[in-house]
Amino acid sequence: MKHMRYKICVIGLGLMGASLAKALKGFRNAEISGADTDEYTREKALYTGAVSRASHDAADVAADANLLVFCVYPRHVPEILERCAPKISDGAVISDICGVKTGLYERITPLIPKNADYVGAHPMAGRERDGIDHADRDLFKGTGFIVCPLPSTKSSSVSLMSDVARHIGATKLAVAPAGLHDQIIAYTSDLMHIAAAALCMDYHPGMTSAYTAGAFRDCTRIGDINAEAWTELLMGNSDNTVSVLERYMGRLSEVRDALREGDAARLTALLELGGANKRAMLGR
Amino acid sequence: MKHMRYKICVIGLGLMGASLAKALKGFRNAEISGADTDEYTREKALYTGAVSRASHDAADVAADANLLVFCVYPRHVPEILERCAPKISDGAVISDICGVKTGLYERITPLIPKNADYVGAHPMAGRERDGIDHADRDLFKGTGFIVCPLPSTKSSSVSLMSDVARHIGATKLAVAPAGLHDQIIAYTSDLMHIAAAALCMDYHPGMTSAYTAGAFRDCTRIGDINAEAWTELLMGNSDNTVSVLERYMGRLSEVRDALREGDAARLTALLELGGANKRAMLGR
Repeated sequence: MKHMRYKICVIGLGLMGASLAKALKGFRNAEISGADTDEYTREKALYTGAVSRASHDAADVAADANLLVFCVYPRHVPEILERCAPKISDGAVISDICGVKTGLYERITPLIPKNADYVGAHPMAGRERDGIDHADRDLFKGTGFIVCPLPSTKSSSVSLMSDVARHIGATKLAVAPAGLHDQIIAYTSDLMHIAAAALCMDYHPGMTSAYTAGAFRDCTRIGDINAEAWTELLMGNSDNTVSVLERYMGRLSEVRDALREGDAARLTALLELGGANKRAMLGR
Repeated sequence: MKHMRYKICVIGLGLMGASLAKALKGFRNAEISGADTDEYTREKALYTGAVSRASHDAADVAADANLLVFCVYPRHVPEILERCAPKISDGAVISDICGVKTGLYERITPLIPKNADYVGAHPMAGRERDGIDHADRDLFKGTGFIVCPLPSTKSSSVSLMSDVARHIGATKLAVAPAGLHDQIIAYTSDLMHIAAAALCMDYHPGMTSAYTAGAFRDCTRIGDINAEAWTELLMGNSDNTVSVLERYMGRLSEVRDALREGDAARLTALLELGGANKRAMLGR
């Protein structure tokens, strides 16, 4: 049997997909192809060398891939996977980079072809602006990367995605099933985005930049997020997110009560708890 | 009459006072003296050239100053001002750098000597760590600076503090009475610190740094604050802070309800409102 060149197919060439394609360069000396429905995106992906082949139809480029990675909105994954499934090669590994897993895995589990293995991933990277124009091969340098196996996922596929993570420059790796992943992400990502967005939903009409310093800059940095993408992410993890959000609101109520009642000792204790946890989290 | 050298006295040589003393170097060719009750702090202030004279007793160095700046906790200002008042020179300008003004001004107004003028200030700068060891002459470079006159403050004193702001490197200036200052700061500073601290009051036990990215880093950056100092600041501005905090909690409730009810349109509209406000605030 002839030795075939390793083939990777990235489905969706927006910010994340195009950045991943660029960062994957050199991984197992692979040929990297891509699919995107947008013509400008395909042309830019070819022109910048992110992919060596591009199609508007995922099933086209998926046919001979050893590794397929879905880099599209979660809601589009099942339909595209269904169309690609009959063409997928024996032994292929299928992955995605969606930020919420439980609901996605429920929908795709019945669609995974018998001759392939599935292992999701969540690179903890992003930009404030979307699209291939913001793609960057260094997007994943020094970031976290979570591999999310299904119960049926082969350990060789978990190893493959760990290799991918290291190749693209991620330095903090974790492996977690979908449920645990979604619970933790509800805190480390979903809650942070809600907190920042809500901080921007009202502001004092008399304020100018003279009144702002690092606290304002950092707490509101992600206040202007892609509302459509984040609605989908948050709705897809709504139970976990509501749970951490209510706990957060409970803490804010405690602070509010301490302030209203002039209970300085209680307020100091709450702020000290936050500080102690912050220091503990830095060491994890 | 002999031309006398301009004299500045900085009362309290912690992070803010020592940084201010260093940044004031060259302002009107002034001689800069300081007071601090801590011996190590005084020695370090002299050794590093932050001040050319240091005393444990503010009244000592206040005697011949043209400009006095209180850089101590707000609760210590009235008592020290009262002790210094009989010695203050004719025409001296007295200032402070406290982060909350209304309560302070109520307490000090009766204590201001008739032969001097008072004008508060609030440099929008700080560090996560306190003390003279973290003092930096560049602390105020590019920051905001708010001059807070009393109703009786002379415009020449407002001008003097604006000159001080420019000399130390502040680039965004505002002038506001205490009440307006405290309302705006409740939003741009107090609320941000509460939001960040509360984000750290609970966390998922399964999390590691692999699950964190820029959102977590920035939203929790100030989660570990000086609990004692912030208790005083927040308690000193509690009415305004409770008001913005409740508005914030109301927005979080709206997000929670949209998530719980699966109302994607409502959630998107809320996130878009945050984004639009964020962009508007950047232009102010």
